Amino acid sequence: MLEVTLPGTGGTMPLKNRWLTCCLLRHEGETVLIDCGEGTQIALRCAGKTVQRLRLLCFTHYHADHISGLPGLLLSMGLDGRTEPLLLAGPRGLRRTVEGLRVIAPELPFPLEYLELDGTETFSAAGLTVEPFAVSHTMPCLGYRLTLPRAGKFDTEKAKENQVPVAVWSRLQKQETAEHDGICYHRSQVLGPPRRGISVTYCTDTRPVPALLRYADSADLLILEGMYGEDDKLPKAVETRHMLFSEAAGIARDANAKRLWLTHYSPSLPNPEEFLAAAQAIFPQTECAADGYDTDLCFPDEEAGIAHSD
Amino acid sequence: MLEVTLPGTGGTMPLKNRWLTCCLLRHEGETVLIDCGEGTQIALRCAGKTVQRLRLLCFTHYHADHISGLPGLLLSMGLDGRTEPLLLAGPRGLRRTVEGLRVIAPELPFPLEYLELDGTETFSAAGLTVEPFAVSHTMPCLGYRLTLPRAGKFDTEKAKENQVPVAVWSRLQKQETAEHDGICYHRSQVLGPPRRGISVTYCTDTRPVPALLRYADSADLLILEGMYGEDDKLPKAVETRHMLFSEAAGIARDANAKRLWLTHYSPSLPNPEEFLAAAQAIFPQTECAADGYDTDLCFPDEEAGIAHSD
Repeated sequence: MLEVTLPGTGGTMPLKNRWLTCCLLRHEGETVLIDCGEGTQIALRCAGKTVQRLRLLCFTHYHADHISGLPGLLLSMGLDGRTEPLLLAGPRGLRRTVEGLRVIAPELPFPLEYLELDGTETFSAAGLTVEPFAVSHTMPCLGYRLTLPRAGKFDTEKAKENQVPVAVWSRLQKQETAEHDGICYHRSQVLGPPRRGISVTYCTDTRPVPALLRYADSADLLILEGMYGEDDKLPKAVETRHMLFSEAAGIARDANAKRLWLTHYSPSLPNPEEFLAAAQAIFPQTECAADGYDTDLCFPDEEAGIAHSD
Repeated sequence: MLEVTLPGTGGTMPLKNRWLTCCLLRHEGETVLIDCGEGTQIALRCAGKTVQRLRLLCFTHYHADHISGLPGLLLSMGLDGRTEPLLLAGPRGLRRTVEGLRVIAPELPFPLEYLELDGTETFSAAGLTVEPFAVSHTMPCLGYRLTLPRAGKFDTEKAKENQVPVAVWSRLQKQETAEHDGICYHRSQVLGPPRRGISVTYCTDTRPVPALLRYADSADLLILEGMYGEDDKLPKAVETRHMLFSEAAGIARDANAKRLWLTHYSPSLPNPEEFLAAAQAIFPQTECAADGYDTDLCFPDEEAGIAHSD
């Protein structure tokens, strides 16, 4: 199961009733956070989330509304006794940006690790496969596709063929290797090909670009910015390199996504719901996320228990 | 009249229901802000305050909870169309600290001016006289005494003595100079000695030190940190260079202040009011401030209209 939460859904500046956009993904307690604007540490607490087991903090880009909360979050984690390293990932310039901000957080009781991305690499963290992709904003900016991988089904014929003793079959469904009578067996000897995992594609701060469509392909959950609701704001969206609701919905439709959450609303958009129907006319499974919005994404035959915000 | 507001009253980290400590002083629309931690721009909005006419932003010191909201505030002021310069003042290291943080706010449509203080200088801004003073924290830290000065009373005898024509008397009560029949007259020719102004002394993040007592002398409003309520937290207060409620109340009493507001509460202190009675036993005019606390301080014979939070 993959838990996805949007503690904040605002773009540009934090508002009284809307925290800045960020996204928390949790799998078996391990956590990934995307972006950390001013107030994100409070937004997380408001959403009832902790970052004690935060393994990875990804940045889409370094505009202040996506990273200004970093010093406070790091210091709070330090006060909370964290000693484990934290992996930070983002477009090139990450180390320089973070080190600039650390002028007010120079001493931390845990190390920071840096992964500067150009949007072509794939890496793993917190049990997830992370694929960044470059999009088109006013500064270098990345979207992320995060996938919870799923092993293949148990294949009795294959197990027999590979002479794997029945005594280790159940263990090999849960772990990589198992030993029996001094022989080490690997799960690849008993499992079929990996099955489709659960994929979440997250992207704010861009114009619609082919890479986004590609990385959004068949996503179980597509989270896109809905910076502006009104179609007549297209010239402004083009100028500021943002997307309209209708453009986000068009991508969800064309990418054959299962669901679309809109987020990263302009401060000029107090009631995103006003423009929801028009977006749903393009892609019916569109939802306007709000602060604290969350869902549990399960494998098709997994225990359901889908908890949805709305 | 001098309007004083505490949009936030928390120390160390912002909480769900308590913004980080800051103080806004307003005189005839001109504004001074002291400190700007994560979320201060939202705290200001929650308190119904704008910073359109912010002339001076003073920092007590550069721990993150006192300055981490700066990039966001600067960017929001820029989006709001500000073009006037903004004066920043604080202990030495100001420019280096602010320039570090500006890695995420590199372009602003208004200039920043820097005033690095060692705690011995006096300057004026927004109609107030500002006197910083050095206190004792874990890093260089300043308190501030801000005074709204008051001109002397009109002195008829002096005016006659100086041969100032009656025609300019009323103008010279309101402005520095006035011309009549080609001669320029100055208010010093008609006014008595300056009268006592209104003084606010603001100090967080320190142990009790003689300078604090000196600059708190007879303050109309003394705003001090109450980091810990319990007296048995003295060893912790000594270690972290903070003050107890009882120590703050003792300073207010010894300095002969008119009122004391406590602020900058530890996150471990959810209900400051629990410790108020003990502080009032030391200094009866002690109040536990909360976010949005505000008052209008008037000259004794000014139109009263004192609006108080509690």
